[in-house]
Amino acid sequence: MIALLLNGQSVADVAHAISAEDRGLQYGDGVFETMLLRDGQVRYLADHYARLLLGCERLGIVPPTMKVIESDIAQMLRVGSEGVLKLIVTRGAGGRGYRSMPSLQPTRVLSLHALPAADTAPGITARWCDTRLARNPQLAGIKHLNRIEQVLAQNEWHDANIAEGLMLDTEGELICATAANVFFFSERTLVTPDLRFSGIRGVMRAQVLSMARLLKIDVEERSVWPQELAAASEVFVTNAIRGLRSVVRLDAQNWQIGPVTQQLTAALSWS
Amino acid sequence: MIALLLNGQSVADVAHAISAEDRGLQYGDGVFETMLLRDGQVRYLADHYARLLLGCERLGIVPPTMKVIESDIAQMLRVGSEGVLKLIVTRGAGGRGYRSMPSLQPTRVLSLHALPAADTAPGITARWCDTRLARNPQLAGIKHLNRIEQVLAQNEWHDANIAEGLMLDTEGELICATAANVFFFSERTLVTPDLRFSGIRGVMRAQVLSMARLLKIDVEERSVWPQELAAASEVFVTNAIRGLRSVVRLDAQNWQIGPVTQQLTAALSWS
Repeated sequence: MIALLLNGQSVADVAHAISAEDRGLQYGDGVFETMLLRDGQVRYLADHYARLLLGCERLGIVPPTMKVIESDIAQMLRVGSEGVLKLIVTRGAGGRGYRSMPSLQPTRVLSLHALPAADTAPGITARWCDTRLARNPQLAGIKHLNRIEQVLAQNEWHDANIAEGLMLDTEGELICATAANVFFFSERTLVTPDLRFSGIRGVMRAQVLSMARLLKIDVEERSVWPQELAAASEVFVTNAIRGLRSVVRLDAQNWQIGPVTQQLTAALSWS
Repeated sequence: MIALLLNGQSVADVAHAISAEDRGLQYGDGVFETMLLRDGQVRYLADHYARLLLGCERLGIVPPTMKVIESDIAQMLRVGSEGVLKLIVTRGAGGRGYRSMPSLQPTRVLSLHALPAADTAPGITARWCDTRLARNPQLAGIKHLNRIEQVLAQNEWHDANIAEGLMLDTEGELICATAANVFFFSERTLVTPDLRFSGIRGVMRAQVLSMARLLKIDVEERSVWPQELAAASEVFVTNAIRGLRSVVRLDAQNWQIGPVTQQLTAALSWS
């Protein structure tokens, strides 16, 4: 962690920053965003904020205003103009027991981190994860803090040559990668899971869908079964930090970095 | 909160106790226990510890030894001999991203809280919650820190006369109350949901099951549908802090505090 702002205040002692009563720690009672900061600009800030609002609404947490977020970011820019910005908003600190007092002041944690190392090759290798995603429409789509499933999934492998793991839900549908959404191109259609029961509605996922429609590529958001990847001509994963990453290998399956992936990458100016 | 020990060290400044990098906050990556302290004794400590071990094993967290826990408790007893003891064990502080480094030192947070107010009547009123529990066998039974569903369920009502809310899973099975397990007596059998897909295997739940078997009461742990309560002659909920609480009202349904509930309450010396 390069720097930390807690409710807009710079905190030097990261190790003693958060209340032991914070409901983020007690119950994972909050939401977060992970954003790319480049040249002093937060990429897709409005989209990140919109998803934060949606998550706060679902959980009944009073969200920070965009003005407050922008003020936090401006303060953080004094420290650095490039990196990963992670914003956590919890319901606040106080009380014992699941029920929250309406008087709680939400906690805002903004941290700046180094960018992850760039991929050494233009396409990535992925694997299948054994850890499944539970289905709950009430929590599907939002980026809440209950992320044990993703932790367990990423802890399944330690081979640095494998960049991502694909995850199924408990019914066996393909949902996402551990920290990315997934797309494939098959029968002249770009397909991505609809995330009605689980998964996170990624900011890059929305960008890819919009751009594909602009480029007159047929798009489907629907339930997807893992077997469908066998018929795909292109597979890629997306997130807000790394943009599009072509999947060139998944167990015994291999793909090229195809024309649709290349077209979308170029159109989103992400290389 | 009356007192706080962080990794065995007394912390006066509860509001600045936890690392902003703690994975308990970042991902709900940990487990907890809520224990009854009375007359300087932690009730069912060995059972709480066993469940903590199970949770740590499922999540791949190195658990604290019983000796360490006992030492923490002994230290806490200097502050008070009665109350609720809450122990949180997270995977530790560090890193950004779901994958955890194997070198992390788990974080141990032991806090002492006042006992909740006693019930004003011998039986409680319950309600049905709209919030559903997701199904994931990999996480079922353990008391992990991903508890948004319970928070949302308890936030559904504000009527202080309603003490608990019953929860269904996403398939409509009856699983538990928001902070308790649920039992009912029907056709000469004591029934409780088997929690194979969701819910927490409560310490009091296990005590009730063992005691019922000792008392030659027929017991079933199985999948339960909410409609079955209509045929029940007794309904009660259990947790480690409040023991057994008879449910005497649930919407339009009413029950008496029945002989099986009374017998189990007496046998477990819990009044």
